[in-house]
Amino acid sequence: MTLPPVLWLLGSDSDLPHIESGLAQLKDLQIPFDVRILSAHRTPEQVGELTSHARERGVKVMIGVAGGAAHLAGVIASKTTLPVIGVPVPTDFAGGLDSLLSTVQMPGGIPVATVSANKAGGKNAALLAARILAVADEAVAQRLLAHRKQMEAGVLSKDAAVSKRFADA
Amino acid sequence: MTLPPVLWLLGSDSDLPHIESGLAQLKDLQIPFDVRILSAHRTPEQVGELTSHARERGVKVMIGVAGGAAHLAGVIASKTTLPVIGVPVPTDFAGGLDSLLSTVQMPGGIPVATVSANKAGGKNAALLAARILAVADEAVAQRLLAHRKQMEAGVLSKDAAVSKRFADA
Amino acid sequence: MTLPPVLWLLGSDSDLPHIESGLAQLKDLQIPFDVRILSAHRTPEQVGELTSHARERGVKVMIGVAGGAAHLAGVIASKTTLPVIGVPVPTDFAGGLDSLLSTVQMPGGIPVATVSANKAGGKNAALLAARILAVADEAVAQRLLAHRKQMEAGVLSKDAAVSKRFADA
Amino acid sequence: MTLPPVLWLLGSDSDLPHIESGLAQLKDLQIPFDVRILSAHRTPEQVGELTSHARERGVKVMIGVAGGAAHLAGVIASKTTLPVIGVPVPTDFAGGLDSLLSTVQMPGGIPVATVSANKAGGKNAALLAARILAVADEAVAQRLLAHRKQMEAGVLSKDAAVSKRFADA
Amino acid sequence: MTLPPVLWLLGSDSDLPHIESGLAQLKDLQIPFDVRILSAHRTPEQVGELTSHARERGVKVMIGVAGGAAHLAGVIASKTTLPVIGVPVPTDFAGGLDSLLSTVQMPGGIPVATVSANKAGGKNAALLAARILAVADEAVAQRLLAHRKQMEAGVLSKDAAVSKRFADA
Amino acid sequence: MTLPPVLWLLGSDSDLPHIESGLAQLKDLQIPFDVRILSAHRTPEQVGELTSHARERGVKVMIGVAGGAAHLAGVIASKTTLPVIGVPVPTDFAGGLDSLLSTVQMPGGIPVATVSANKAGGKNAALLAARILAVADEAVAQRLLAHRKQMEAGVLSKDAAVSKRFADA
Amino acid sequence: MTLPPVLWLLGSDSDLPHIESGLAQLKDLQIPFDVRILSAHRTPEQVGELTSHARERGVKVMIGVAGGAAHLAGVIASKTTLPVIGVPVPTDFAGGLDSLLSTVQMPGGIPVATVSANKAGGKNAALLAARILAVADEAVAQRLLAHRKQMEAGVLSKDAAVSKRFADA
Amino acid sequence: MTLPPVLWLLGSDSDLPHIESGLAQLKDLQIPFDVRILSAHRTPEQVGELTSHARERGVKVMIGVAGGAAHLAGVIASKTTLPVIGVPVPTDFAGGLDSLLSTVQMPGGIPVATVSANKAGGKNAALLAARILAVADEAVAQRLLAHRKQMEAGVLSKDAAVSKRFADA
Repeated sequence: MTLPPVLWLLGSDSDLPHIESGLAQLKDLQIPFDVRILSAHRTPEQVGELTSHARERGVKVMIGVAGGAAHLAGVIASKTTLPVIGVPVPTDFAGGLDSLLSTVQMPGGIPVATVSANKAGGKNAALLAARILAVADEAVAQRLLAHRKQMEAGVLSKDAAVSKRFADA
Repeated sequence: MTLPPVLWLLGSDSDLPHIESGLAQLKDLQIPFDVRILSAHRTPEQVGELTSHARERGVKVMIGVAGGAAHLAGVIASKTTLPVIGVPVPTDFAGGLDSLLSTVQMPGGIPVATVSANKAGGKNAALLAARILAVADEAVAQRLLAHRKQMEAGVLSKDAAVSKRFADA
Repeated sequence: MTLPPVLWLLGSDSDLPHIESGLAQLKDLQIPFDVRILSAHRTPEQVGELTSHARERGVKVMIGVAGGAAHLAGVIASKTTLPVIGVPVPTDFAGGLDSLLSTVQMPGGIPVATVSANKAGGKNAALLAARILAVADEAVAQRLLAHRKQMEAGVLSKDAAVSKRFADA
Repeated sequence: MTLPPVLWLLGSDSDLPHIESGLAQLKDLQIPFDVRILSAHRTPEQVGELTSHARERGVKVMIGVAGGAAHLAGVIASKTTLPVIGVPVPTDFAGGLDSLLSTVQMPGGIPVATVSANKAGGKNAALLAARILAVADEAVAQRLLAHRKQMEAGVLSKDAAVSKRFADA
Repeated sequence: MTLPPVLWLLGSDSDLPHIESGLAQLKDLQIPFDVRILSAHRTPEQVGELTSHARERGVKVMIGVAGGAAHLAGVIASKTTLPVIGVPVPTDFAGGLDSLLSTVQMPGGIPVATVSANKAGGKNAALLAARILAVADEAVAQRLLAHRKQMEAGVLSKDAAVSKRFADA
Repeated sequence: MTLPPVLWLLGSDSDLPHIESGLAQLKDLQIPFDVRILSAHRTPEQVGELTSHARERGVKVMIGVAGGAAHLAGVIASKTTLPVIGVPVPTDFAGGLDSLLSTVQMPGGIPVATVSANKAGGKNAALLAARILAVADEAVAQRLLAHRKQMEAGVLSKDAAVSKRFADA
Repeated sequence: MTLPPVLWLLGSDSDLPHIESGLAQLKDLQIPFDVRILSAHRTPEQVGELTSHARERGVKVMIGVAGGAAHLAGVIASKTTLPVIGVPVPTDFAGGLDSLLSTVQMPGGIPVATVSANKAGGKNAALLAARILAVADEAVAQRLLAHRKQMEAGVLSKDAAVSKRFADA
Repeated sequence: MTLPPVLWLLGSDSDLPHIESGLAQLKDLQIPFDVRILSAHRTPEQVGELTSHARERGVKVMIGVAGGAAHLAGVIASKTTLPVIGVPVPTDFAGGLDSLLSTVQMPGGIPVATVSANKAGGKNAALLAARILAVADEAVAQRLLAHRKQMEAGVLSKDAAVSKRFADA
């Protein structure tokens, strides 16, 4: 059975809110995706099974989302040659230092593309997936360009509003 | 003028040794690359110029390598829609905590694919670049598979040697 | 077009509350200023454009305010010879350790004058800017002296109140 | 095929020196053990295979030894109901903060018994394994008691030597 | 007087909520336990007295629960040859970095089996105790296997629910 | 007696090597300076005396250099309205985390312009002092521009050398 | 004018709640004290004046209470030969890591007796002051012994209550 | 048997070099002391025995020296009403963050007077002990004053030498 190009794996459904803006971002960029709840530790077989066959089923980028001793992205990366993005979920331990180090400090040979250990993590994972797809997909590249223009316009309009407020004051 | 698919930017030529194993890895995978010494702070114009036109000149993945307040990868990511990999160079400050946080904690909208802040960083950047290229390049994917087999074989042969040593003891 | 001597750049308008006491402090010291919302990553061109011409337009001190992988002050400092103050905005990551290290750990050649990564950051940026202006402006120096007397008086009056409370108890 | 009661897994043979004193300790306590080099990321299948059948082959305690994003002990713990000890190998990143957090901060349901992230880690893993075996093995318990007496005597003899040195001075 | 196989010691009764899920877990696994409030610093004699005789009174695993300069588990471990589990209670200091380091960084000779410094700590201590008992108790081992199946089923049912939600959307 | 525009205070003469490149930088920019060894804790009166009169004796920027509980720059800043630069000297404690936090986390009212807690600290203090002087001194501003060109040229020449090396390879 | 044996200095009256339990503790031990609000940075002269004459006016222990770049205790210690206790006030920066390091990492020659950087700080400062006074004051020593018995009794009564609750359950 | 007023306890004789300058300092101040090697974990009974009777045998200040999960000072403090100084021995873990937090973060009721977690720790422990003795011993107070003058003179002479060197240059 075919899968969409972007496949999110979450260690726990309590992490869903953390990636909502990322899912919205992918929709905005018209990139299909799927979201699965599978844990590196509680369902290792299922993670292995899904990951080993992801490439042949059409997946192009996998995203592992986990907190604490966040092994999920690393475990995924050990079972596929697809690019794997790691999203370190913020925790109460120094804000997510544990999630970040567990995700990023991979040994030589098995890279995890780690994004921000803060509330931007989900969105940035989505945009990084899009950039990866855009390497070979000009349409996505164009939409990314448009998104960047939009971000720029957003900042500039806030800049104008703030400038006006201070000029009026 | 055309550029190779992988383009490394280093904030300083003193960081070259940190990526040597990464360069060797790319050669091994038969992926052409270029290495440039350009600093986000000392040569911002040149970084901007090179990055803005990278995609149209054939680059598919950019890699920023820097230490301390490591802004290079983030600055690159702000000027292109290509996937940008960040390599946090180890420092004397808690081993590279400054490099890591400056590289990975990007705001929403501009992702940097951060790899290990340790001696595996260069090699993992190369392998992540290869995984990204392999999304649309089956030959690279095959070479990555072979590389993984090789890694596996390397571990197993060490395992055999150690087992034998302890059995002999 | 002429600009005031102190120019604040904020990576996001959500950082405005963090500098309010700083803006009030500058007003108190009768030092004109402007506030702009411009992001090192979302509007790099505008940051570069504004900064490159800041000195010739009358700016004497620039202040970059950002959180997380806070590149703004460093990026500004790379485009001007004016003194650049960096305000690391507190975050949920260990309270702002990421903002602080990204702002202060600059490479040799491009200094950022970093102030407190806590709620005093905005006010201290304003006072540091005033101290810099006061190097060549005796009137500002006099107002700074008066401000210091006022701070001293404030502490002493609190001291008197507390002493009385304990004497009465 | 039967395995000894204590089974060490190391992510890399470069970690062997870190556990030497632990191996010596086990010999001293007359507890048989085996050492295998297997990586959570480079040989995930072999780790899974060995671990899943460890209990039925006679293993009573497993010990995972790894550094950086140290997933090995957690991955082992997800495949067995045996007690799993994690040894965080010191690194250049703040001395091993990455190894420690990756090993200890496990999610609810899959515990890893983590020992010191310093040079005592290997020895303490061995002694913890011995304590676990001693729950049901009075002979090991007796040897542990003797070992503690020996440690006590060692400290007291150093105390006597130092006291004498200062008395003589 | 006989004691149950698992004995919890808490430095303060304010830590009770932190282990509630752990107590529930033990009940679920039908493992009897006792909970005592005794402090390494405020009641050192009682800790020593209770611990020294724990083994002969039937205790098989001891669990020390404390925060800050968390010496309790280490002090217990110095007075018994039983396996001692340390639960680092989260604090306001970087989320519990102080509790974690005080518990885990034991010197060579006196191991403490440290579990997660987060809200999973209590539960994981219970499960680690169960794994230790299960080394020699097949019934507990069977219940642990059932518990793992249950965890797996829990994740899979959440996975199904989430998959359905996204399919419906 | 008149003093030069830049006045360095070092907590200990063992910190001299840390600022050597800074002194050379000032010479290069033709900015006169003086270096004093005075400690916030061992010679508080002398620090106070020198600082209180610094402005009237011609000093324009003061630089405090200290490690550990680095109070020097803060103590200086409490006794003058001159801009005060703080140089956190690297230590063995996480590379200088103690020096950095003690220097930068100043309370509202007393700013310290903190530069890098790494080997670039001395040089960046010098360049920051120069930028401050350049606010009112066009000649220094011109020299800073020239210095920046020189830095840029240095990077570009290294870039050329590296490019050539890889092209030749 | 004579002063009581224990003299608290607070950098800000907002720190008063942090020491309330400490003040109550001293009252309980019948040890007179005074509390002053004086800042190392905003009122350095007054701190110096008060401290220099503290011993001759009857003070026996001084306590400095401050947060962030907490220089107060160190500055006090530099002006007296009395024992000086430092209380690091918790902050939002990793819970008070800045306060702790600024207080404790003093250079050789000027010790600060640092107590807990958590809510126990104020109380422990009071008890440490009492222990110091008790070196030469048997009455205080007796009250400290009684206090310890009381603490012990408090823990034991909680222990009894908890034991009963679990026995009843 | 009578003991000297200052009693050092070291967790290990490998920590002796760390306190050498402290011992020399005490000799210099003519304060008798004793040094014992006793471990909180390996010889808990002996630590308890020695500490419980220290006061009645003439000890006035106890000093606990340990690294890692440094429980020694806290354990001592729980068995006496004497003031207890804690010396956190530097380690490879972030320079001694583990030693520091284990020593200083004591719960309410049992204070440990913690000194610097760096090479100044031993010396500062000695000077803090002297300050405590000097509360009731005018002769020691006079020697401390002389020591401070000497430190001051040392700094001033280095200041003169450095000033001369730069004047000559």
